[in-house]
Amino acid sequence: MLKATIDADIFRETIDAITALVNECRFHVDEHGIHTIMVDPSNVAMVSLDLEAGAFSTYAAESAELGLDIEKIRAMMGMIGKTDSVTLELDDTGKKLKISFSGYEYSITLLDTKTIRKDPSAPILDLPATFEIVGSTFYDAIKAAAMVSDKISLSVNPETQIFTLDAEGDSDRIKRELAGDDVYYTSCAAARSLFSLDYLKDMGKSINRADRVQIRLGNDHPVQFSFFYADGKGKIGYLLAPRIGAD
Amino acid sequence: MLKATIDADIFRETIDAITALVNECRFHVDEHGIHTIMVDPSNVAMVSLDLEAGAFSTYAAESAELGLDIEKIRAMMGMIGKTDSVTLELDDTGKKLKISFSGYEYSITLLDTKTIRKDPSAPILDLPATFEIVGSTFYDAIKAAAMVSDKISLSVNPETQIFTLDAEGDSDRIKRELAGDDVYYTSCAAARSLFSLDYLKDMGKSINRADRVQIRLGNDHPVQFSFFYADGKGKIGYLLAPRIGAD
Amino acid sequence: MLKATIDADIFRETIDAITALVNECRFHVDEHGIHTIMVDPSNVAMVSLDLEAGAFSTYAAESAELGLDIEKIRAMMGMIGKTDSVTLELDDTGKKLKISFSGYEYSITLLDTKTIRKDPSAPILDLPATFEIVGSTFYDAIKAAAMVSDKISLSVNPETQIFTLDAEGDSDRIKRELAGDDVYYTSCAAARSLFSLDYLKDMGKSINRADRVQIRLGNDHPVQFSFFYADGKGKIGYLLAPRIGAD
Repeated sequence: MLKATIDADIFRETIDAITALVNECRFHVDEHGIHTIMVDPSNVAMVSLDLEAGAFSTYAAESAELGLDIEKIRAMMGMIGKTDSVTLELDDTGKKLKISFSGYEYSITLLDTKTIRKDPSAPILDLPATFEIVGSTFYDAIKAAAMVSDKISLSVNPETQIFTLDAEGDSDRIKRELAGDDVYYTSCAAARSLFSLDYLKDMGKSINRADRVQIRLGNDHPVQFSFFYADGKGKIGYLLAPRIGAD
Repeated sequence: MLKATIDADIFRETIDAITALVNECRFHVDEHGIHTIMVDPSNVAMVSLDLEAGAFSTYAAESAELGLDIEKIRAMMGMIGKTDSVTLELDDTGKKLKISFSGYEYSITLLDTKTIRKDPSAPILDLPATFEIVGSTFYDAIKAAAMVSDKISLSVNPETQIFTLDAEGDSDRIKRELAGDDVYYTSCAAARSLFSLDYLKDMGKSINRADRVQIRLGNDHPVQFSFFYADGKGKIGYLLAPRIGAD
Repeated sequence: MLKATIDADIFRETIDAITALVNECRFHVDEHGIHTIMVDPSNVAMVSLDLEAGAFSTYAAESAELGLDIEKIRAMMGMIGKTDSVTLELDDTGKKLKISFSGYEYSITLLDTKTIRKDPSAPILDLPATFEIVGSTFYDAIKAAAMVSDKISLSVNPETQIFTLDAEGDSDRIKRELAGDDVYYTSCAAARSLFSLDYLKDMGKSINRADRVQIRLGNDHPVQFSFFYADGKGKIGYLLAPRIGAD
């Protein structure tokens, strides 16, 4: 059972965060809220999302697993105006989700959750550097980097306290250094890893909206991004495996 | 003979309404105004348009038939600014139409009207339900429906007085119900027919601009749309044959 | 040696003017400023550009030739905000140009100037008609013309003092006449030549921004366009060979 109403903007951000990596997902629904964790088809990136019941304007749910073709829902988002609220309702058979907004009833058949790859377990990682930057600063740098290369190194230098995004192509290179007021360290330790820009671009569209994104970085280790949305009642996390550093 | 000046917006709406269904058309011109009625190439839809002499800022015409490659004129519309007026003038040989706007003279060779399919006669239809809705409400619903299916059922329920647009795809369904202040009935009778969304999308772009569109609906019968433009001095009508209802 | 800072808008206009015709170019740099002159790959059009040291907010340079993949720089321009300034700096080896803007360092490897076709010498032409028009008027007329044809005739009639742009397609024709306050003659003499619209469209995007573009026209001769930018401290010139006039 699920019947809940949510602000359209929060719903949109939820859907966009997940479709950045996967087309299908499994929503774990219970009285406390909604949770999902998915690995992308090539096993390189992971997205996790938690949305508390308190993020909804009304919320009533019993424990359930919903298999969603979330890409289809994303395509329908264009029809939802900015100021609308969206109502989600599981039908009695538990086979369809009804999404209602501004006079529309959009009903989608749920996927059999057995056909969706099973939830990954979030790895425990030793990532020495932890810091926050503005989400749009990150995404702008990723877009610029993608013009010269398909990979980027992220690094922290504890001496200079500079966080560097550095992309080197065959003949060009673009570098963005963040220091001082542009980066807030929790732990400023030496770290450097290399990543595929393709994945960072996809994640970046979602990170772009975050006032602050927390980044956790290691040495030739995965990078973790996490940020809050929905007035702090929602949390999105990304994990991206490093590229082998032949650079 | 034709020499007439018209507001660019009215001219644009005229051209767009016709190009929604056909690339070529026959303008019947006389002292009272301009009239056209055309069937689309697959014989499924019909457009009719009447524009009174009074819709023009200046108008002088004798009886004539003009064969127009109207799609070419549509392509040129981007060059016409919003506030411009447009002057139409048939040249002395009657073979070319000169369209003048903001310093430009655009001259197009008329088509031989014998090469354009002859005017259809508007069928007499028994369509029990007649009502009006806001044009943009209709077009928004059509766009949403096109995301889940290629066909839509339009129906009126005289008990509930609800007008329903209902599109069912393989696994998804989108439904829009209009009632109360959102639908103005002249005749609220039982009706239900199924239509191709492709055609409704094309017509919808033009209907979208209408404050009110009148819809006439029957049971497995064609649907008729009609609305005024040019301050009531122009009228556009569409007719669309139903799909055979294997749904 | 080169180290110079310039307003982002002026830099953008510089890059766009050159990429209209070529992907690679040779910058001649010295204490007085920057100069380039290039012929397009098909030898039909030429672009020249001069930007004085005074157009930069800071400027220090010694004589040098820089080979630039200017199309790559154009692709990066989207990252530069409207209000930014841009700093150009040749590295110590003289093999890379560093372009810095709003926290980014974009470094591109210079091309070997020997691999870039050598500078053309600007031909001396006898072009009897010389006049100025508004840049956007020119570009709008070129865009309209391109809808009906792939070539356009430009002509001056000294009797009527009308400058005419006239494009004739297979069945359509578009004509724009400029007279009176819309054209400022230095020399109003008979001239008429025919040109490819493809090239004029490319040049037109750059000409579009000029308050005034000077046009020099002859009879079946090349046409010259020239205009100032950067508050008069920059000058851009285009030369386009005529088409053989089978019209």
